Amino acid sequence: MPALLDMRIAEETVRRALQEDLGTGDVTTLLTVPEGVEVTGEFLAGQSGVLAGMPVAERVFHLLDPRVRVEPLVKEGQYFVSGTVLAEVRGEARALLMGERVALNFLQRLSGIATLTARFVEMVRGLPVRICDTRKTTPGLRYLERYAVRVGGGYNHRFGLYDAVLIKDNHLAVCGSVAEAVQRVRRALPHTMRIEVECTTLQQVQEALDAGADILLLDNMSLDVLQEAVRLAKGRAFLEASGGVCLENVRQIAETGVEAISIGALTHSAPAIDIKLEFR
Amino acid sequence: MPALLDMRIAEETVRRALQEDLGTGDVTTLLTVPEGVEVTGEFLAGQSGVLAGMPVAERVFHLLDPRVRVEPLVKEGQYFVSGTVLAEVRGEARALLMGERVALNFLQRLSGIATLTARFVEMVRGLPVRICDTRKTTPGLRYLERYAVRVGGGYNHRFGLYDAVLIKDNHLAVCGSVAEAVQRVRRALPHTMRIEVECTTLQQVQEALDAGADILLLDNMSLDVLQEAVRLAKGRAFLEASGGVCLENVRQIAETGVEAISIGALTHSAPAIDIKLEFR
Amino acid sequence: MPALLDMRIAEETVRRALQEDLGTGDVTTLLTVPEGVEVTGEFLAGQSGVLAGMPVAERVFHLLDPRVRVEPLVKEGQYFVSGTVLAEVRGEARALLMGERVALNFLQRLSGIATLTARFVEMVRGLPVRICDTRKTTPGLRYLERYAVRVGGGYNHRFGLYDAVLIKDNHLAVCGSVAEAVQRVRRALPHTMRIEVECTTLQQVQEALDAGADILLLDNMSLDVLQEAVRLAKGRAFLEASGGVCLENVRQIAETGVEAISIGALTHSAPAIDIKLEFR
Amino acid sequence: MPALLDMRIAEETVRRALQEDLGTGDVTTLLTVPEGVEVTGEFLAGQSGVLAGMPVAERVFHLLDPRVRVEPLVKEGQYFVSGTVLAEVRGEARALLMGERVALNFLQRLSGIATLTARFVEMVRGLPVRICDTRKTTPGLRYLERYAVRVGGGYNHRFGLYDAVLIKDNHLAVCGSVAEAVQRVRRALPHTMRIEVECTTLQQVQEALDAGADILLLDNMSLDVLQEAVRLAKGRAFLEASGGVCLENVRQIAETGVEAISIGALTHSAPAIDIKLEFR
Amino acid sequence: MPALLDMRIAEETVRRALQEDLGTGDVTTLLTVPEGVEVTGEFLAGQSGVLAGMPVAERVFHLLDPRVRVEPLVKEGQYFVSGTVLAEVRGEARALLMGERVALNFLQRLSGIATLTARFVEMVRGLPVRICDTRKTTPGLRYLERYAVRVGGGYNHRFGLYDAVLIKDNHLAVCGSVAEAVQRVRRALPHTMRIEVECTTLQQVQEALDAGADILLLDNMSLDVLQEAVRLAKGRAFLEASGGVCLENVRQIAETGVEAISIGALTHSAPAIDIKLEFR
Amino acid sequence: MPALLDMRIAEETVRRALQEDLGTGDVTTLLTVPEGVEVTGEFLAGQSGVLAGMPVAERVFHLLDPRVRVEPLVKEGQYFVSGTVLAEVRGEARALLMGERVALNFLQRLSGIATLTARFVEMVRGLPVRICDTRKTTPGLRYLERYAVRVGGGYNHRFGLYDAVLIKDNHLAVCGSVAEAVQRVRRALPHTMRIEVECTTLQQVQEALDAGADILLLDNMSLDVLQEAVRLAKGRAFLEASGGVCLENVRQIAETGVEAISIGALTHSAPAIDIKLEFR
Repeated sequence: MPALLDMRIAEETVRRALQEDLGTGDVTTLLTVPEGVEVTGEFLAGQSGVLAGMPVAERVFHLLDPRVRVEPLVKEGQYFVSGTVLAEVRGEARALLMGERVALNFLQRLSGIATLTARFVEMVRGLPVRICDTRKTTPGLRYLERYAVRVGGGYNHRFGLYDAVLIKDNHLAVCGSVAEAVQRVRRALPHTMRIEVECTTLQQVQEALDAGADILLLDNMSLDVLQEAVRLAKGRAFLEASGGVCLENVRQIAETGVEAISIGALTHSAPAIDIKLEFR
Repeated sequence: MPALLDMRIAEETVRRALQEDLGTGDVTTLLTVPEGVEVTGEFLAGQSGVLAGMPVAERVFHLLDPRVRVEPLVKEGQYFVSGTVLAEVRGEARALLMGERVALNFLQRLSGIATLTARFVEMVRGLPVRICDTRKTTPGLRYLERYAVRVGGGYNHRFGLYDAVLIKDNHLAVCGSVAEAVQRVRRALPHTMRIEVECTTLQQVQEALDAGADILLLDNMSLDVLQEAVRLAKGRAFLEASGGVCLENVRQIAETGVEAISIGALTHSAPAIDIKLEFR
Repeated sequence: MPALLDMRIAEETVRRALQEDLGTGDVTTLLTVPEGVEVTGEFLAGQSGVLAGMPVAERVFHLLDPRVRVEPLVKEGQYFVSGTVLAEVRGEARALLMGERVALNFLQRLSGIATLTARFVEMVRGLPVRICDTRKTTPGLRYLERYAVRVGGGYNHRFGLYDAVLIKDNHLAVCGSVAEAVQRVRRALPHTMRIEVECTTLQQVQEALDAGADILLLDNMSLDVLQEAVRLAKGRAFLEASGGVCLENVRQIAETGVEAISIGALTHSAPAIDIKLEFR
Repeated sequence: MPALLDMRIAEETVRRALQEDLGTGDVTTLLTVPEGVEVTGEFLAGQSGVLAGMPVAERVFHLLDPRVRVEPLVKEGQYFVSGTVLAEVRGEARALLMGERVALNFLQRLSGIATLTARFVEMVRGLPVRICDTRKTTPGLRYLERYAVRVGGGYNHRFGLYDAVLIKDNHLAVCGSVAEAVQRVRRALPHTMRIEVECTTLQQVQEALDAGADILLLDNMSLDVLQEAVRLAKGRAFLEASGGVCLENVRQIAETGVEAISIGALTHSAPAIDIKLEFR
Repeated sequence: MPALLDMRIAEETVRRALQEDLGTGDVTTLLTVPEGVEVTGEFLAGQSGVLAGMPVAERVFHLLDPRVRVEPLVKEGQYFVSGTVLAEVRGEARALLMGERVALNFLQRLSGIATLTARFVEMVRGLPVRICDTRKTTPGLRYLERYAVRVGGGYNHRFGLYDAVLIKDNHLAVCGSVAEAVQRVRRALPHTMRIEVECTTLQQVQEALDAGADILLLDNMSLDVLQEAVRLAKGRAFLEASGGVCLENVRQIAETGVEAISIGALTHSAPAIDIKLEFR
Repeated sequence: MPALLDMRIAEETVRRALQEDLGTGDVTTLLTVPEGVEVTGEFLAGQSGVLAGMPVAERVFHLLDPRVRVEPLVKEGQYFVSGTVLAEVRGEARALLMGERVALNFLQRLSGIATLTARFVEMVRGLPVRICDTRKTTPGLRYLERYAVRVGGGYNHRFGLYDAVLIKDNHLAVCGSVAEAVQRVRRALPHTMRIEVECTTLQQVQEALDAGADILLLDNMSLDVLQEAVRLAKGRAFLEASGGVCLENVRQIAETGVEAISIGALTHSAPAIDIKLEFR
């Protein structure tokens, strides 16, 4: 099933991005390009990557002029090489010129995330493990960046602080024991929510299991300790590894038997993919 | 003079970022951490870089609880090494836990941009040239990302489509000649605004000069052509180079005599700097 | 632990309620009451109930004038009888008069919900079962109404469509089998989320268990069938009953061994509690 | 003439209600129901009542997908019995599933209010008296709840604090005499506005008449006193009774000759009418 | 009693005006004026007039910096001559420079309206008639412009289309007879609202009286006809004249015995009063 | 080329103006005019002037009902005499009645500004000088008022504090010398922005030229001094005159050789043009 994108939810973000760039109006376009000129442009890849965000780019143009037509030539999630025409855009020249930069800013960033995600996913191919995102997203773009992760073959973690429990070191620093923390949470939490506990030592793993945590976040463990943690906990809780994950070590981490690996870099450090809009 | 940040303008962005993460409330913190517990945390650098965004991080906490105190130990724009404590944060544990991730998301990204900018600035040290940003910013974060560029020693280009004219290839594709485009614009533009014209050939440079452009954007020219363009135009228009700029070639480009070099990567591809918040 | 209310999240709702009532200004108060008159008022109960919403009432006045002081004499969640003074309010007469009705509208509704919830909770006293709310809340007031349910001793279900999965009859009507539906969801769902399946027959219970549902919503079953469902499923999934629950039958339902009973009437049909503001 | 509803004014309320429920997206529907499946559903009454709010329900679906069609089978304001199909809804399954609960939440509440109002109206049938609402409405829903009152055959009082004057006990507690209060108001009030004065004793009735009040709110008077007040004031001011009104005593109150009876319970305590959406 | 201004209602307007002018920041001030410089400025009148809007100007500065102090030397509604210092402003130079123009734009316009209103009021001195505003206000500024009219000694008409009924020629063109229109309205209108009917002939005056209109708007009548209308209607309805009113004829119109004269020019054509902010 | 108006930018202003007037609904129209009645109205000029704002009026109606048709009979910027039908409006009577006043409020004000601007432009006909607006606009209407100035044949100055530098007396009062101020600004300003300096004496003119200002604002100079300033500065900076400009002296000012004359009165004191909407 293709990754799902509800543009109703993303539209406000697109609208704000347009407003940020357009301000009181695109002086260059309004003064050089007359109304009523129809043009065709091509989204052209300047490097290889995995496409994500064409429906967002389309919405950028639609907010400027609902008659603009975007015809994708490459599907969301598909790999492309440099020189590929990703989509054709047809419509009023003014709308295309006004929306060009904003559309590209979304497209380049989201494709960058999808591309990096796909590389991680590729590294663990064949292993029963999920590559996951984190909350280390760009302020204001979380919904879209999570979408890009899914497009790249990855999975999402919780959306924010409100839709799952994750008890971390700083909570425990205040709250005291894992047991105490989990117990307090379980007593009041809706039965529809899961509890995850961050563990950095095997002792914490044991405590979290005893406390009845649903998910363990095995944070920054060496491969040895990770292995041992998996041995201890597998089948009793869902196991997620994180911390210091890179393309070089992700397969080894996956081979310990964890069920998910979460990687902040997917969203906070993916370089943009070079894409241009060229008028024919 | 230090780079200027008007938090009144950035506050809405901070507010939305908090709302995105907090949604209907931080279930973990509310259920594990009682009201009224005071803690002290440290922003700790996990790698070296140039600091940008501490006032933004501070505002994150202030929106949650105006009594939180952030004491910077490193100044905006200062270089730091891994292991440095960048600031101390003191206040209600709940506010610190709820704001931690959002504060870090801003801090890591803005410091990433300042750090990359500073590296480019360092490469052209001693030469009379500005390192500039572009409109290739993250949707919704342009004001803050431009600030981070200044913190790193760079300069800003126009903010958006509304505060300066930049006639690009796609405008010319519709409008026809440079002369025609500049003339149309000059006739109607407020006298407070400048006109910049993108040129990819020497012929366009000549045309833009003849048309009376204030600024030339010398786009994707080889060093030879760039040199020639400078010879032709210097003193008659402000000269800005762009396209394919990287740390390796930026000094050579600067040595051609251009007055500004604009680099999209400053904002679209700067990797985040690793920073954590640790409770004492 | 007392029920938790984050007024940051509720404040926008309070602000809108004030604006709805005040419009272009309280003509009566502005024309009859001079600035600078200090008064003391009492929130007086006209019937017995369980208090919920005094912090909301307080925020109403604070938005009008931050100097108003509300001193609660009864705690959130406490039972009171008719004639009880629930709180004292002191401050500028204009602010008290302008906020009175809005404050009461919140207070009466939320106390109504807490009161009805407490009656259900009382009926199942001693049994290991949660009284839960549903999404049958007043449009725009869900956060506050869920708070009132907790104040009354009840528990919350998922907040909305986004923070847990609940596969209902209408989904199955489109999707086909329970097995198919659960499988599709599990394959793509964040590992932090639970899956609940609505079952109206024992066969569906069996299918949902086989499909690996985390929670079963046993909907509108007779006591006999419910009993059988519990026998079949207890320990393999979390069991929640719903449909046609009233004060008369809630204990019998609880005695079947379900772990939660969800009741729409808590929020959609709780009558307001009679409370007044009287000036001394 | 049917009751009037301007959906332009109500739309923001509908939009917010959808956002509250949908948050970052309906995970269940998106994961179980493919795009492009058309279904037909029926709004089915689970009990008898008076219908109000179908245009609001329709707008809920239209905001999700403008192609959804709602065909009412029962008119706004019409009485229906349990088992009646109130309307048919046709369209994309996803839109119907996402909007179902929000549509029902509006429909059940508004029909509840219309139903209760109609019962009061029925009790005073044949008498020249209006059944009126008050400002005791649900925060944020006043426009729609007032509409539901009209649908049920009732009348509206002032919308809020800004569109008519109502001098109440708490104003008089500060301002002093009725004469003084009315005089101050009259001197500054736009000539398009009416002045109403709350009276609890016959002496206040006399004072308010002498002061030239346009409307008297006869509050919480016994039937005897009310009778006397009517004798005193009828023809000199518009007379409205309120306080302690219920289905049992409303006709007696009406028979005293008052011209309007205002009842808070219409909006603050009307139980929801049981309505479901069932897919064919 | 001084004219009443609720800055809570006006604040959003002030906030938007600041945002309109400040955009992404005051480049001049930020680059020329360091933080922390305290200055004192004077609002200086360049011509005579009646002051209105100083609390609005004060709010402009407070939104930029709550520490700015504005000390009025002339009261709202007071007449001043050219050269008068209207108020002193003290605070951070940056805040004063950023807010100066917006503060003046409000102050000059509102004082312009108050001044023009006061001239009309002066012309009818001693006669029992109100000088009233209309809905011919500047889009977005109605609340403040109505305030300025009161400051100048005038009175307000209805705020908008929602708080009183005014049946005009275009309504009658569709609806048919006055009798029909008034009857339809009366049947459904809240009892707290008044009905006004526009009349341009004596026949319409008679019809409106017969229909029971509360207020007659005698529009564009010659003095003779107006006189006759007053004779016909005085005591049976409140009488308001409008149309073609100017300083030259306002007293004659007033002498016909109408109770109010409404004048669009008060808000749509009052020239701004010349006021400056000068730093000491 | 006709003056440019981007209704996307103006739409929010129109929406707010409608909301201000409509509030909770147009009681008169809803109660007197049935749904479904089609009418035709004419915008009729009550005096001569220059038309501006018909697309804004059209948007007012479209926001109420997208089926309303406005057919302009006079073009934006065209001169008309009293009695001219400016446009025909056809559509649902309710929409026309609800939007009439707001549409007229925009149309009358914008045409007032265009008319006054055109008179100034006429006075300097044949001279190479621009008539410019200032930031002395109505709070919230700057975008539209600047459009009206262009329609009248004038030019725009900077939009706000953010899109050009203008160093004024109050900046210099804090900053010290012109040289210092310009230098500080130039060092940090984007190269796309111009620097303007306000000068009231010839010495300041000399200093500003020496400092390298791009534009000089020659403020409140006598014709003699202005002449001398032009002699000194022409060709070295763009020259703009302002202060005390009126229809009587504008040509003399223009004849000094300045390139622009900026006039606050264009937007702050243009009287509204009398326009009505009459139903056929």
